[in-house]
Amino acid sequence: MAKEKKLVEEITSMDVDFAQWYTDVVKKAELTDYTSVKGCMVIKPAGYAIWENIQKELDARFKASGVENVYLPMLIPESLLQKEKDHVEGFAPEVAWVTHGGLEPLQERMCIRPTSETLFCDFYAKEIQSYRDLPKVYNQWCSVMRWEKTTRPFLRSREFLWQEGHTAHATAEEAEARTQQMLNLYADFCEEVLAMPVIRGRKTDKEKFAGAEATYTIEALMHDGKALQSGTSHNFGDGFAKAFGIQYTAKDNTLQYVHQTSWGMTTRLIGAIIMVHGDNSGLVLPPRIAPTQVMIIPIAQHKEGVLDKAYELKSTLLEAGFKVKVDDSDKSPGWKFSEQEMKGIPVRIEIGPKDIEANQAVIVRRDTREKIVVALPELAEKVGEVLTTMQSDMLEKARKHRDSHTYDAHNYEEFVKIVNEKPGFVRAMWCGDQACEDKIKEDTTATSRCMPFKQDHIADTCVCCGKPAKALVYWGKAY
Amino acid sequence: MAKEKKLVEEITSMDVDFAQWYTDVVKKAELTDYTSVKGCMVIKPAGYAIWENIQKELDARFKASGVENVYLPMLIPESLLQKEKDHVEGFAPEVAWVTHGGLEPLQERMCIRPTSETLFCDFYAKEIQSYRDLPKVYNQWCSVMRWEKTTRPFLRSREFLWQEGHTAHATAEEAEARTQQMLNLYADFCEEVLAMPVIRGRKTDKEKFAGAEATYTIEALMHDGKALQSGTSHNFGDGFAKAFGIQYTAKDNTLQYVHQTSWGMTTRLIGAIIMVHGDNSGLVLPPRIAPTQVMIIPIAQHKEGVLDKAYELKSTLLEAGFKVKVDDSDKSPGWKFSEQEMKGIPVRIEIGPKDIEANQAVIVRRDTREKIVVALPELAEKVGEVLTTMQSDMLEKARKHRDSHTYDAHNYEEFVKIVNEKPGFVRAMWCGDQACEDKIKEDTTATSRCMPFKQDHIADTCVCCGKPAKALVYWGKAY
Ligand SMILES: [Zn+2]
Ligand SMILES: [Zn+2]
Repeated sequence: MAKEKKLVEEITSMDVDFAQWYTDVVKKAELTDYTSVKGCMVIKPAGYAIWENIQKELDARFKASGVENVYLPMLIPESLLQKEKDHVEGFAPEVAWVTHGGLEPLQERMCIRPTSETLFCDFYAKEIQSYRDLPKVYNQWCSVMRWEKTTRPFLRSREFLWQEGHTAHATAEEAEARTQQMLNLYADFCEEVLAMPVIRGRKTDKEKFAGAEATYTIEALMHDGKALQSGTSHNFGDGFAKAFGIQYTAKDNTLQYVHQTSWGMTTRLIGAIIMVHGDNSGLVLPPRIAPTQVMIIPIAQHKEGVLDKAYELKSTLLEAGFKVKVDDSDKSPGWKFSEQEMKGIPVRIEIGPKDIEANQAVIVRRDTREKIVVALPELAEKVGEVLTTMQSDMLEKARKHRDSHTYDAHNYEEFVKIVNEKPGFVRAMWCGDQACEDKIKEDTTATSRCMPFKQDHIADTCVCCGKPAKALVYWGKAY
Repeated sequence: MAKEKKLVEEITSMDVDFAQWYTDVVKKAELTDYTSVKGCMVIKPAGYAIWENIQKELDARFKASGVENVYLPMLIPESLLQKEKDHVEGFAPEVAWVTHGGLEPLQERMCIRPTSETLFCDFYAKEIQSYRDLPKVYNQWCSVMRWEKTTRPFLRSREFLWQEGHTAHATAEEAEARTQQMLNLYADFCEEVLAMPVIRGRKTDKEKFAGAEATYTIEALMHDGKALQSGTSHNFGDGFAKAFGIQYTAKDNTLQYVHQTSWGMTTRLIGAIIMVHGDNSGLVLPPRIAPTQVMIIPIAQHKEGVLDKAYELKSTLLEAGFKVKVDDSDKSPGWKFSEQEMKGIPVRIEIGPKDIEANQAVIVRRDTREKIVVALPELAEKVGEVLTTMQSDMLEKARKHRDSHTYDAHNYEEFVKIVNEKPGFVRAMWCGDQACEDKIKEDTTATSRCMPFKQDHIADTCVCCGKPAKALVYWGKAY
């Protein structure tokens, strides 16, 4: 027994205090820790392994769609950041400035990249001469820095990890197609791998990216009814190309500006996984993203043959292609169960002397806690089945939660009442005027999350001002 | 024909100007480019793909040896950097300083990490309480920044990519074992994957890492006879633990300091690959690290059936597990040959109408230019054979080059003459006194590269001062 360590402590109930529940889970599941660097976190092995799996899956999908990886500098000279007017206004207030290199002051100060549009533009201006040099479909995996005032692990921190894709195309059509392609790639990834349903749509002008012509987004609903923007894809048109002079000679020998896009996903996704799937026992990881899928926990492991059998099952399952560990520490089985649940490992296998005698084991699903007694010769097959079922059940459950927390509002009174009383998405028509977005935010703190690709016409007039409606909008309080 | 593009230009001969040859190859093989950020480079797709393969191979070896990946902040508060005296003296003169966050000056300035010992120590001081928390064997993949005055792509740049492992152990013995384990892992990786032989040894006190008790190194010899430090592994003893207060309660209930190590490899390795294997036609990539192993070049591709056959061969080779591309651009075959050679793709397959008629293809090895006519049904098998042979031949060739450029010096006159006239390693005995290292550097610009693990006793006295010799040292001019 590990007497030095306190017993696995209770975490705050998510129904009592969701924010505290989140903080507790992040800490108890050993995903991150605080550091001496204010606003920056350590991502610990259990958290980083999730990010590695996200990277591996996304990167394979990127490469299958023709993306090539590159690496650009982490510093941006101030004059470069200032070349595109909207962009610098959006980012200058929140960057970290390097003013000294070694013992000398710099001639021009540089910021740590908050995002790399300006660097890619500077690079493309040199690289691209002819239509033969197009398209450029580059991506980089790196960290970026934004000087946030209030921070929370994964959701908002001064430094975070992400990928940023930056592309340049000969035509506006091709750029628009790539913008939507990547947004759909993100959405498919979230649904297929993270078991997280998302609303695909377009941001209003108020909410779009600094310098973009159009920003597309995927919006997920967390367990507490708040929205989380989970990935964005931007079409820049030729705005950056004009600011940076990125031109190519077309087939007809005319000089043309390129059309550009950018798109990104971040470590924020780990926060989304926690808040979509977690419960009062801790994390629940979808099998396809879990660094460990199966934890074998021996019962009465001091008895002869128990540990050997546990290792034997591990070998069988490893060979079958699952990610498996045995918890052979000297803790009690009950404690091991709690730890496995806290860490969100999808499946636990209990194996003790009685099971061995009966040539069976007990599989326990993390999400439903369903116990399944299985004959040992069928173990690998059954584990595969359970993981597959669990993956699709988790998506289904999240979808049901999302749908049952999505409300239609037909007038402002109804809208305000829903936002105040029912956590979730509110669908309502909008006139297209930013004044209505501003008023709604002022009155309710809800923001426009997106204009979904799948438009329904649920009323003729704007929910806020009563003028003719232009689009259906998903509204919600957001992280 | 691509008329817009100039024909593949000649690169400078390596025998005329090795430095210019290197710069030409880096540019023509499209590995990197310069940026508007002085001293920082863009790593382009062809260069980054090599780094991805290095990461993949190294990371798998790390994990097999029990390493877990984490991510720590990129900024270090000045007070944290200053906690270990030798360390701060070594790094403070060459770091970049962040002084402003957003619109506000920082209360305490922070540097961009030049290396992360101090951050890991700060983290470990909180994480480690009991012997049960040990060992910690963590690694991170990230970029670091050192404000170098003169820079060269891959070899020396202000920002570079690397991995840095940082471990904490209960005993001095365990830390020493891990230090040597990782050095040997690096050496095996270089020899097996990069086909690059290395000398494994220990640095003298003068050359060791700032704050280390012992630094182990692997030293490779480049084609021009200069040495390149290719990976280092440091044993810190309990020096950092004492500076940062990293203590644990041992089994006997006493309070003990941990013993620590760190070890790293960088994008410098790509420079090493270029300078060990390259020739006057460009890059030569060892098959195990090449992003593209086989380039199929159709001859007279406008003729019916040629391109189809090329794609068919590609499918066959892809299925057999090789990394294959077809160059179906509208350039001439001769141009395509030059490009494939410049980019160092290990094997080229030529297939034209006559080959198709004879049911054969021509395999050309990049390193020896040997041409092998092979019947199509045996193509995959033969390609595998050629790649395997090429991998081991490249190691053998590099080893022969290294050995034939390694000289023994028995007195100072001989030593100076060799250093001045014969590029390569010089083996000579040393008394252990830094004054002799200083004098040798002053007289010849050569430095002590390492005291090899495999010690020979080639003389009784120091080659410099004539006092009794303590160790055999490899000396050389270095990058
Ligand atoms: Zn309105
Ligand atoms: Zn001496």
